[in-house]
Amino acid sequence: MNNISILGVTGSIGIQTLDVIRKSNKEINLVGVSANTSVNKMKEIIKEFMPKYVAMMDRNAADDIKSYCIENNFNIEVYSAIEGLEKIATLEEIDMVVTSVVGMIGLRPTIKAIEAKKDIALANKETLVVAGELIMKKARENNIKIYPVDSEHSAIFQALSGYKTDDISKIILTASGGPFRGKNLEYLKNVTVEEALNHPKWNMGKKISIDSATLMNKGLEVIEAHYLFNCSYDKIEVIIHPQSIIHSMVEYKDASVIAQLGSTDMRLPIQYALNKKVRKHPIASKLNFYEISELTFEKPDMETFKCLKLAYQAGKEGGLAPCILNSANEEAVALLLEEKINFIEIPTIIEKALEYFKEEKSKELTLENILEIDYKVRKYVRDNCK
Amino acid sequence: MNNISILGVTGSIGIQTLDVIRKSNKEINLVGVSANTSVNKMKEIIKEFMPKYVAMMDRNAADDIKSYCIENNFNIEVYSAIEGLEKIATLEEIDMVVTSVVGMIGLRPTIKAIEAKKDIALANKETLVVAGELIMKKARENNIKIYPVDSEHSAIFQALSGYKTDDISKIILTASGGPFRGKNLEYLKNVTVEEALNHPKWNMGKKISIDSATLMNKGLEVIEAHYLFNCSYDKIEVIIHPQSIIHSMVEYKDASVIAQLGSTDMRLPIQYALNKKVRKHPIASKLNFYEISELTFEKPDMETFKCLKLAYQAGKEGGLAPCILNSANEEAVALLLEEKINFIEIPTIIEKALEYFKEEKSKELTLENILEIDYKVRKYVRDNCK
Repeated sequence: MNNISILGVTGSIGIQTLDVIRKSNKEINLVGVSANTSVNKMKEIIKEFMPKYVAMMDRNAADDIKSYCIENNFNIEVYSAIEGLEKIATLEEIDMVVTSVVGMIGLRPTIKAIEAKKDIALANKETLVVAGELIMKKARENNIKIYPVDSEHSAIFQALSGYKTDDISKIILTASGGPFRGKNLEYLKNVTVEEALNHPKWNMGKKISIDSATLMNKGLEVIEAHYLFNCSYDKIEVIIHPQSIIHSMVEYKDASVIAQLGSTDMRLPIQYALNKKVRKHPIASKLNFYEISELTFEKPDMETFKCLKLAYQAGKEGGLAPCILNSANEEAVALLLEEKINFIEIPTIIEKALEYFKEEKSKELTLENILEIDYKVRKYVRDNCK
Repeated sequence: MNNISILGVTGSIGIQTLDVIRKSNKEINLVGVSANTSVNKMKEIIKEFMPKYVAMMDRNAADDIKSYCIENNFNIEVYSAIEGLEKIATLEEIDMVVTSVVGMIGLRPTIKAIEAKKDIALANKETLVVAGELIMKKARENNIKIYPVDSEHSAIFQALSGYKTDDISKIILTASGGPFRGKNLEYLKNVTVEEALNHPKWNMGKKISIDSATLMNKGLEVIEAHYLFNCSYDKIEVIIHPQSIIHSMVEYKDASVIAQLGSTDMRLPIQYALNKKVRKHPIASKLNFYEISELTFEKPDMETFKCLKLAYQAGKEGGLAPCILNSANEEAVALLLEEKINFIEIPTIIEKALEYFKEEKSKELTLENILEIDYKVRKYVRDNCK
């Protein structure tokens, strides 16, 4: 029996994780869950899964859930705010935390979970982007494992099985290219939020859908791969692969390439992570190669989709640069979703923030410095970029 | 230092194995070699590699090599005939034998090598086809490893690294489709030997080139995979993949697929086998995905290319059926190369042989019975099918 908590249970990955648990033949037991504000979704989850602990980031939402539990005589402890999330992440009964919150809000509970010696099923890539060195160091110190949930990193994780990371000559991250693949800057000037949200291959949350359209998602994944697999940036290559069948590849030093393929169903990498690399019965549908007529590959256009280039640059600079990149991006995406900026402005905003805070990039990478620069960058973007 | 012998050193795989040794930074030491009749090629190999032991299947060829060694004051022991091959396969100094002879002539020396507790780098697929159960049992008893050299089986071997064979839900063998992919029976009636030898992707020996054109090569590989990976025939699928970039795949029970990709260069799987799964510097060229525009897949046409269907049938029947299939095929290919039959007659001959010897299929699988049925089938094909 694997006892777990899920942070961000009402989001896209959270909901799919619930389905993996539902189909786990009771091998996975859901002990704790957290969400931001989604009270109704949380009530449904409580009814079905009866977790022992629930946290809502929003205090009013927490009160609603408390009343609901009392009315129904559910013996559930309800917490609120970031302390609530941290409680859910460090429960004594659990041995793994699924971090599927969106954005760098996941950072503090993830650190707490690692310190409490919980394995991490990591779906919150921003955590590694802003604090990769810190997180990986803490993971080593506490002797816990980080199992990637991102389909690309899960693919690399699977392709590395049985091999040594020393033998890697290159990590090849595949990218669908998003809804605007092949378009030029002129075209991007006039795209709408709805068009940007309409991903051709994956059904995902809003933040990651926009990130996929700008290719920032791939940029964040490059930085994530750098930390997860201890691989230098010149050994991480991005390839546009519109069919999203090959989820990523590892080229070894002898020129042999190992790839992981699968349907575009996040439940497969979630299941692999939750079961700590033990393969279980199929939840995702199987590939039918007789029906896959072709797999194609293209070079990414980093001039048009400049976010990817900026991510490589910030990653190579290290220090607080990836954090500045990420905070500016999170805020820019929020502004886009509020329809306060155009799609094309996202990389410009990030570039401006990286330039404006260039003196701070080389500050020491501590949790305090990360939280401070995050606050400053968000304020800067809000104040100057809409 | 890895000390090895190569059986069939002057053939296509043998020559490529020499190049792997040449580029091994002296980590691999060539102790013994054998060939059939190619005296001139053998002299070149002796000059460059100075093996301590040489065997020629042909007695006159062995005498030529003996004289050559005496003239040049080379301190080399020269043997002849099948006993000579067996000597090369069982040398005390070696720990691995590369079996790259063509056809089931490799069977006896391979058995002797296993009994002498030598690991096997297996490029002679006919050995496993005719005597898979015997060979795998002997390998277990003598606690030796069989490292596949075929690009497909090496791919599966690599894709299985770090996983359990129990987790396999399907082995997907890829096939280029050969020079006649997409053609119909009418077309095949008029093809020439030259056309059949002209493989679109791989530069190989004549026997395997013809087998690739009939798809018998893939049929033999299905049977080989059955024994190597202890996998039932209904879990082995063949997919036509004309680009030959994906060398084969494993579908796991959770619906995840692991594939091995590489350039069409046999030195890669040879190097992987010779180094017992330890990855070394690149000898084969690296893939450039920006230049690979597409990978495609098709269902094999087992009515037009009936050899593949016959191989599945014989494999499932087991016993001596795969041996009858293989002997009839070896003899039919020889008849084609002598231009005594047409390309289209190969499956017909094999089918006739399987029917004619149907009473003998269920005989016990012993070396004696294999050699006896092999003799009978070859004679039957020679006497009745040209």
